Amino acid sequence: MSRLASDRHRSEPVGVAVVGAGYWGPNLVRNLLAYEGCELRWVCDLSIERALRAAGRYTTIRATDSLETVLADPRVEAVAVATPPATHTAVVLECLGAGKHVLVEKPLACSVADGERLVAMAARSGLVLMLDHTYCYTPAVRRLRELVMSGTLGKIQYVDSVRINLGLVQPDTDVFWDLAPHDLSILDFVLDGSCWPTAVAAHGADPISAGRPCIGYLTLPLTGGAIAHIHVNWLSPTKIRTTVVGGSRRTVVWDDLCPSQRLSVYDRGVELAEPDADAATRQALTVSYRVGDMVAPALPETEALQHVVMEFVASIREGRLPLTDGAAGVRVLRILEAAAHSLRERGAAIPLDLTPVGTGNGVARLVAV
Amino acid sequence: MSRLASDRHRSEPVGVAVVGAGYWGPNLVRNLLAYEGCELRWVCDLSIERALRAAGRYTTIRATDSLETVLADPRVEAVAVATPPATHTAVVLECLGAGKHVLVEKPLACSVADGERLVAMAARSGLVLMLDHTYCYTPAVRRLRELVMSGTLGKIQYVDSVRINLGLVQPDTDVFWDLAPHDLSILDFVLDGSCWPTAVAAHGADPISAGRPCIGYLTLPLTGGAIAHIHVNWLSPTKIRTTVVGGSRRTVVWDDLCPSQRLSVYDRGVELAEPDADAATRQALTVSYRVGDMVAPALPETEALQHVVMEFVASIREGRLPLTDGAAGVRVLRILEAAAHSLRERGAAIPLDLTPVGTGNGVARLVAV
Amino acid sequence: MSRLASDRHRSEPVGVAVVGAGYWGPNLVRNLLAYEGCELRWVCDLSIERALRAAGRYTTIRATDSLETVLADPRVEAVAVATPPATHTAVVLECLGAGKHVLVEKPLACSVADGERLVAMAARSGLVLMLDHTYCYTPAVRRLRELVMSGTLGKIQYVDSVRINLGLVQPDTDVFWDLAPHDLSILDFVLDGSCWPTAVAAHGADPISAGRPCIGYLTLPLTGGAIAHIHVNWLSPTKIRTTVVGGSRRTVVWDDLCPSQRLSVYDRGVELAEPDADAATRQALTVSYRVGDMVAPALPETEALQHVVMEFVASIREGRLPLTDGAAGVRVLRILEAAAHSLRERGAAIPLDLTPVGTGNGVARLVAV
Amino acid sequence: MSRLASDRHRSEPVGVAVVGAGYWGPNLVRNLLAYEGCELRWVCDLSIERALRAAGRYTTIRATDSLETVLADPRVEAVAVATPPATHTAVVLECLGAGKHVLVEKPLACSVADGERLVAMAARSGLVLMLDHTYCYTPAVRRLRELVMSGTLGKIQYVDSVRINLGLVQPDTDVFWDLAPHDLSILDFVLDGSCWPTAVAAHGADPISAGRPCIGYLTLPLTGGAIAHIHVNWLSPTKIRTTVVGGSRRTVVWDDLCPSQRLSVYDRGVELAEPDADAATRQALTVSYRVGDMVAPALPETEALQHVVMEFVASIREGRLPLTDGAAGVRVLRILEAAAHSLRERGAAIPLDLTPVGTGNGVARLVAV
Repeated sequence: MSRLASDRHRSEPVGVAVVGAGYWGPNLVRNLLAYEGCELRWVCDLSIERALRAAGRYTTIRATDSLETVLADPRVEAVAVATPPATHTAVVLECLGAGKHVLVEKPLACSVADGERLVAMAARSGLVLMLDHTYCYTPAVRRLRELVMSGTLGKIQYVDSVRINLGLVQPDTDVFWDLAPHDLSILDFVLDGSCWPTAVAAHGADPISAGRPCIGYLTLPLTGGAIAHIHVNWLSPTKIRTTVVGGSRRTVVWDDLCPSQRLSVYDRGVELAEPDADAATRQALTVSYRVGDMVAPALPETEALQHVVMEFVASIREGRLPLTDGAAGVRVLRILEAAAHSLRERGAAIPLDLTPVGTGNGVARLVAV
Repeated sequence: MSRLASDRHRSEPVGVAVVGAGYWGPNLVRNLLAYEGCELRWVCDLSIERALRAAGRYTTIRATDSLETVLADPRVEAVAVATPPATHTAVVLECLGAGKHVLVEKPLACSVADGERLVAMAARSGLVLMLDHTYCYTPAVRRLRELVMSGTLGKIQYVDSVRINLGLVQPDTDVFWDLAPHDLSILDFVLDGSCWPTAVAAHGADPISAGRPCIGYLTLPLTGGAIAHIHVNWLSPTKIRTTVVGGSRRTVVWDDLCPSQRLSVYDRGVELAEPDADAATRQALTVSYRVGDMVAPALPETEALQHVVMEFVASIREGRLPLTDGAAGVRVLRILEAAAHSLRERGAAIPLDLTPVGTGNGVARLVAV
Repeated sequence: MSRLASDRHRSEPVGVAVVGAGYWGPNLVRNLLAYEGCELRWVCDLSIERALRAAGRYTTIRATDSLETVLADPRVEAVAVATPPATHTAVVLECLGAGKHVLVEKPLACSVADGERLVAMAARSGLVLMLDHTYCYTPAVRRLRELVMSGTLGKIQYVDSVRINLGLVQPDTDVFWDLAPHDLSILDFVLDGSCWPTAVAAHGADPISAGRPCIGYLTLPLTGGAIAHIHVNWLSPTKIRTTVVGGSRRTVVWDDLCPSQRLSVYDRGVELAEPDADAATRQALTVSYRVGDMVAPALPETEALQHVVMEFVASIREGRLPLTDGAAGVRVLRILEAAAHSLRERGAAIPLDLTPVGTGNGVARLVAV
Repeated sequence: MSRLASDRHRSEPVGVAVVGAGYWGPNLVRNLLAYEGCELRWVCDLSIERALRAAGRYTTIRATDSLETVLADPRVEAVAVATPPATHTAVVLECLGAGKHVLVEKPLACSVADGERLVAMAARSGLVLMLDHTYCYTPAVRRLRELVMSGTLGKIQYVDSVRINLGLVQPDTDVFWDLAPHDLSILDFVLDGSCWPTAVAAHGADPISAGRPCIGYLTLPLTGGAIAHIHVNWLSPTKIRTTVVGGSRRTVVWDDLCPSQRLSVYDRGVELAEPDADAATRQALTVSYRVGDMVAPALPETEALQHVVMEFVASIREGRLPLTDGAAGVRVLRILEAAAHSLRERGAAIPLDLTPVGTGNGVARLVAV
């Protein structure tokens, strides 16, 4: 039997629990509290103190260190999982097994095989399995996706993403698994089947002898002759978060750290391939800063995680795949696994087989199989 | 016999000619005119009209279409060569053969073999062979070099360079040979033997079917575990020219298109490799933009080419290698050739043998051998 | 009898109520909830729905529309007042009369006379009366104050503040009373008695026929020959929030909308008064962007209102004047009143008598008189 | 007899001389040399060395210290005057008296009376008298003018101009006369009769005891309820050059020191005057950075002075008033004189009588009267 919420009363809030109250869990708690479409019932963590702290002093929400207790609550329909990545597979399986919809932090799992198990399990049970690909729910990335989907940018020529973070070396992962899921999920979301990576080559460096790459470059040839490139970097006292999406008609620069102008859409794509570009033209381009008008669209300053929560609840209520579904999480894992393979082979290009199905798109129905 | 200028009167200007009055030649003319240390005597181009135009209407300088005439003028001691790259080897050889010092545009030649012939010829004749690696003479790059040389940055961890140009596809070259010489010459100049590339992997894309790469990525492992990366791109309506040099003590961001703040020196390098980075630390870093103070040094707004001209004249007068000598030009060619090789092998890393001798440094004496 | 908290147990949280749950109240609620030094007991608003909404769905805090009930709660020691400005005098008087410490939104009152009554009443009762001059508790303004206090900037020469807001015309006030309190409280806080305004001239414009000034300029001669200037503006689709503080040794630019670089400290003050500044010097300055190094200090990304709450609680516990005390609020009112006078007299300079006592400074003891 | 060029051969270059080879003269020389529409014949300066230096080493142009000699040359039709302001009246009168067209640096003269004499003399003689209001010929200001003229901005509501210069105190003038002519000429050019100042109030400060204002503020009520404001400042180690023009439909921010985005046109003017702006609206505006899209038009990187020279030559050839004619220079003088008056009266508003005739507009014919 499908556990879809379609037949229950729509206006009733969806009962939710948060599992994992470490680094990201408190953000989930705050956003679930703020959304009237759900009712947060539990905060669960192996450390009860952490769970209590995340719930807050004035709250009516219960804290627990027992996942079993949470899953036994029949009014909990959905669980947001923010435990460490290594535990995702076990925790998500348990939640799905108890008939709960799941929102899970990135990366979905530690391997493609595990990720596919989770997706299959959710599909079998007709349950929502949603990835918290938070960036996909920022106003900037949503607009970026619209610009691509609507053909405003023209044919995509390149995507170049730089994510240089403040110098915090993670103890249990490398820079690719820590940071690249952000960029890969954005790439997956923004391109959404219009073109997709056919291979990946990875180059890493560990200049501080951390025992794993702290700087990483991913090169991803895209179908149609385009190319995507991702630079992730732990070693910096300053942040840089810029993505350039070049198209045949327009180019977008997304600077996530410039709140007054996150997106800049430049008007003219490349049309120049002049066999006789004369000196005057070159000279003019040399002194110019750009060749077409630029539009910086107004974007609302809304918290992305609020939209994640809303999409999670909406997909449960409407019995459909969420925009960032388990399949999107698996595609990210495929690239991460292939990148690890490439790294072991000194940067050789590893072919990828990504079915160009796009993301959940918010339309495909959940069907228990 | 050495043709060094050491025995002639120091205060007398050096007689110079410009050969090639196309795209770059007029800039050389303007800067040679402005420098009192030289006397511009000829502007030479296959098109006499172009030569006349470059010389200007009010000038006492002679225009010609005969290189022979120029080289026959005994008061011409030095020639600035700004002809197309394919002609460099022949023209420079002719100039050196006539006993003239040479300043030549990048790239030095079209192959390592040709480049080495030119360097050998200059060495044999005791003549200056200088590369017009213009960016190395900007106040920003000079300061960058000082920051590296003085140890201010600490141990170099990575260099990341982005050069996205206005959409002008060159007819006779690919994006690597057109743009990467800038970044490679800067890398060569700034690192100057403190570390150097041991291999290169190249990835390119041609999404507009131009018949050659229009987007390119070079990954260069450096000695000591560091890494350099260069992104060159013809396909954009807006320019981006940013280089980040990360060190163990400080990180520098060079944004060449921000004249009021070209260099930003961030105070704290990476020191964090915490096995137990707790949630609070991660959270704090997540909301922060950076972790240390930043200093943006005041830089004079001087024209780099003026300093090129001054260094050319000074190296002639002092009988020494210029800061950007023929050997630097050959090192750039070695990387370009290996990159082309890597491209043909789908991005495989091609080992490099770059003698870590640094640049001319302005001290080594010219000796005719 | 003094109602100072000095004799009660220090580690016990201070019982607090929020009165006024409109625009700003919810921010106070959120920050009081987050601070362990206080216990939020009530949210009070004439509209009980608004009070309930501000308290939130999961809360143990009580909502009420009765101020009397709140003041009757003996465990409420302090009240944060965020009602409309026109009600401040009455509400604050009632709170003080009930022996409660008060934190009040800017402006303190609608006239100097009313403001002085409140200050006198608080002083008589030995109660804390603190102004929520929020900007004074941002990391940027605190640093700015330190830079002035420590002499790093040298002698202050000018302060220039621009506050251009998104186009929202307030119904019940003009642009001076709505926006200038921010700038005036910052000025008061940063200069803190090192120099102070001796007069004010006000110019306003109402190009949209709103019936009151929508654009305003305040010019304030400062002691010692310096000058402060404030530009407030409601009529814009984009925000600008920049303050320049020029000193004899350094100049600071504070751009509040640039989170990665809010403060820029330029190294060299003015020292040039050259009778014979020759053409070359002028030319050099003309092409330069600046003449000294710039330092952009790292600032924590903390919420100012959290620090307001902490200072409020600390001043209650320590029985001392808060950093932004009632007297600071009165000084702001004095300037606003004089500015209104100047406006009526077509911009004539109105003398000010501001006792140069600085702000509360967090040291002066509260004494019931 | 009219000395209009209309009857001479159009394709012949206009013979020109530069008088004054100090700070600005060499820029005029360079731009006159580069323009084929004129023939530079003389460089004249009281110091023959300065004249020779400005002419350059390779030139065929003659240098002299005799204005008489220059004016006696029948092939000199026009003179560009770049002598110190105090000498403008005498030099320009002499040139006009000799039947030469004149381009003169700002300010036109040291008083309105002198300025009017020059305008009258030029009018009587049918000669071009053009002001070198250089900024009016920048691509940014030309576009700004178009945006106003075409109604794109809607009704002008305010103009706010900030010109903070590197710390160079001029010996023979105050900050108003030194810097404000730039802003006043831009204001005159951009508004061009659509609205105009009706009064001026000036406030100055001299915190370094230079003996004259080093910081200045001008407030100019404009017809129609709008307002213009100018801040000029000598005392800074960094430059700021920003002008905001607010209109009922759009607002433009011009940042002259940001070459990649000098003009930003914000989409939505002010339309909000909501009597019941509720808390939610205020909250939304508080967290937003702006409310409409922004367009940054592509602007060519051309040198303004080249366009000054072209307009000078074109107005001579076409026998018409130049875009920035003598009358524009007089209007600037009127405001400067009134500002000086206001300063003496402690900032009182001094009424202005500026005939709203707009600038020369490049259409009115020169007629000798």
